[in-house]
Amino acid sequence: MNRSLSVRSKKESSGSGEKSLPKHRFTMASLRGMQQPDLSKKLYRLIKSENHAIGAYETAGRERLAIAQQLSEWGEATEDDAMSEVSDKLGVLMAEIAEQEDLYASKLEEYRGVLKQIRNTESSVQPSRDHKQKVSDEIAKLKYKEPQSTKIVQLEQELVRAEAQSLVAEAQLTNITRQKFKEAYDIHFEATIERAEKQIILAKQARRILNLLDDTPIVPGDVHQPFGGFELARDILNDAEEQLRNWQSNVEPIHSTAGGLGLGAMPGAPAEVAQEPAGYRDKTARSRSTSGERRLARAESLGSHDGGGEVQPPYTEAERREVAQAGVI
Amino acid sequence: MNRSLSVRSKKESSGSGEKSLPKHRFTMASLRGMQQPDLSKKLYRLIKSENHAIGAYETAGRERLAIAQQLSEWGEATEDDAMSEVSDKLGVLMAEIAEQEDLYASKLEEYRGVLKQIRNTESSVQPSRDHKQKVSDEIAKLKYKEPQSTKIVQLEQELVRAEAQSLVAEAQLTNITRQKFKEAYDIHFEATIERAEKQIILAKQARRILNLLDDTPIVPGDVHQPFGGFELARDILNDAEEQLRNWQSNVEPIHSTAGGLGLGAMPGAPAEVAQEPAGYRDKTARSRSTSGERRLARAESLGSHDGGGEVQPPYTEAERREVAQAGVI
Repeated sequence: MNRSLSVRSKKESSGSGEKSLPKHRFTMASLRGMQQPDLSKKLYRLIKSENHAIGAYETAGRERLAIAQQLSEWGEATEDDAMSEVSDKLGVLMAEIAEQEDLYASKLEEYRGVLKQIRNTESSVQPSRDHKQKVSDEIAKLKYKEPQSTKIVQLEQELVRAEAQSLVAEAQLTNITRQKFKEAYDIHFEATIERAEKQIILAKQARRILNLLDDTPIVPGDVHQPFGGFELARDILNDAEEQLRNWQSNVEPIHSTAGGLGLGAMPGAPAEVAQEPAGYRDKTARSRSTSGERRLARAESLGSHDGGGEVQPPYTEAERREVAQAGVI
Repeated sequence: MNRSLSVRSKKESSGSGEKSLPKHRFTMASLRGMQQPDLSKKLYRLIKSENHAIGAYETAGRERLAIAQQLSEWGEATEDDAMSEVSDKLGVLMAEIAEQEDLYASKLEEYRGVLKQIRNTESSVQPSRDHKQKVSDEIAKLKYKEPQSTKIVQLEQELVRAEAQSLVAEAQLTNITRQKFKEAYDIHFEATIERAEKQIILAKQARRILNLLDDTPIVPGDVHQPFGGFELARDILNDAEEQLRNWQSNVEPIHSTAGGLGLGAMPGAPAEVAQEPAGYRDKTARSRSTSGERRLARAESLGSHDGGGEVQPPYTEAERREVAQAGVI
């Protein structure tokens, strides 16, 4: 690990930094990227890159599964009992390693969903920033052109309201960002560890199977000793199965004090606190095992934004009242 | 792991088994696949699938690296010191996780190279099987059409030589297959464990970084406590670096008794034994970090077969003598 203490590209070298990013074909999605408000552009791109990464793990899983089967069938075709048995049992373990790749991809999809909630909040906060700026600009223009206009008073009242709205929006943004960021990367790194621990179990048992094969060379006309490892190979598969079944996640928990994040993404009432944590750990992995399903899921997310965590401007009457109570207006 | 004890597709359902294999576009390579001798067709396909799997890991590594940088830059753009620092340091660890993906891909490339040695031996053994069959067929035909032909005696001598050649070829094939199979999957599963163990180190440290972020919600107009985790974040990166540096492979060794595999893929003289093991563990990973390099490497392997482990028919005079000495002829 001989990299610097930061991966941030220096401003001067941002040109060369861009170069290292993987290139993808121009699609409707890249067009949509351009339409994203400035505030959510960076995260939008990250979420898109993550989609490519997840796709790569799905491909790897699919190929690994095919390879497991091909290995077993090649072993059978060698007409060598030992090769046949060892390759078949390795195939079983490799298929399970492939399944772990696929499970990892679906956990990453879940993490990606949480990042989308931050991105949606970001894009919903942009109009409130824009509105405040617009009113402020109008006042300045009017003061210069018609300093006596009665409209100025009206606009200044409007500005106070816009500022209040903006303060709420910015607080909502930082609250959602921090909470969902921790939630997202909790899922991400837990998934990394789960894949790793389970693949270690499987690969270690695979090495035991491999050791059942005797590779002592023979002379022409001679044959290998009959293979005596059938039972042992079965036992090893059973060991692997049992170890996987007994596997438990054993990571340092990520601490969250966002339990008080209530409706409207503000510090909430105790009643709301009780509801939050359940949702936080509700890790129902969205299936994306086939690329067909993925395309469907993407199409859905275009039609309707992905719900949770999104702050929809303009604010509702209830939210205006909340702000008023908070003493901002 | 609720799969059967075998991944071999049953003969009856081989049609549906085929369906599960990933589809790839028709290329010159698929054409070459058809030209492979029957004996090496299955392994040829497996090696091709492995190429797709390796490509997927390379893609994943590249995307993960981009994501690490995008995360850090997004964090900077939030103009929130805590988010900025935490996302940047997570980015550093994620970039290292990406590098492990890439390292894994190059180890798999090495394993794939060893499988190619078996495939090359397979395809070089086919002509000797074919030749034996051809001579045998000619004798049968001649005995039916011209039973008195003196050519029969000549062909029967030829058949004895062909059978001897074939016996050698089959012994070479089984010797190479078993030895290289163990070598290949030793590399494969060791690489799986190495990637997993190193990514666990990195993901666990990443979780510590994540815990530095306070996600207590704030009310509008309020600000978060100043971020106090700068030093701790640096310490965590140093811990990760030290743990990676101290990492050592700690797997059950794969036992090989193929040390006696000498020249000509036959049980060899002690002098040859001394040479073999060095080659066995010579795991110089071939770089295939960019797809350009990979294409180059593939082009090379088209022009000239990949050397090691290949048995080139027709056999040399020296090999004929070896067979004669072994008492086969």
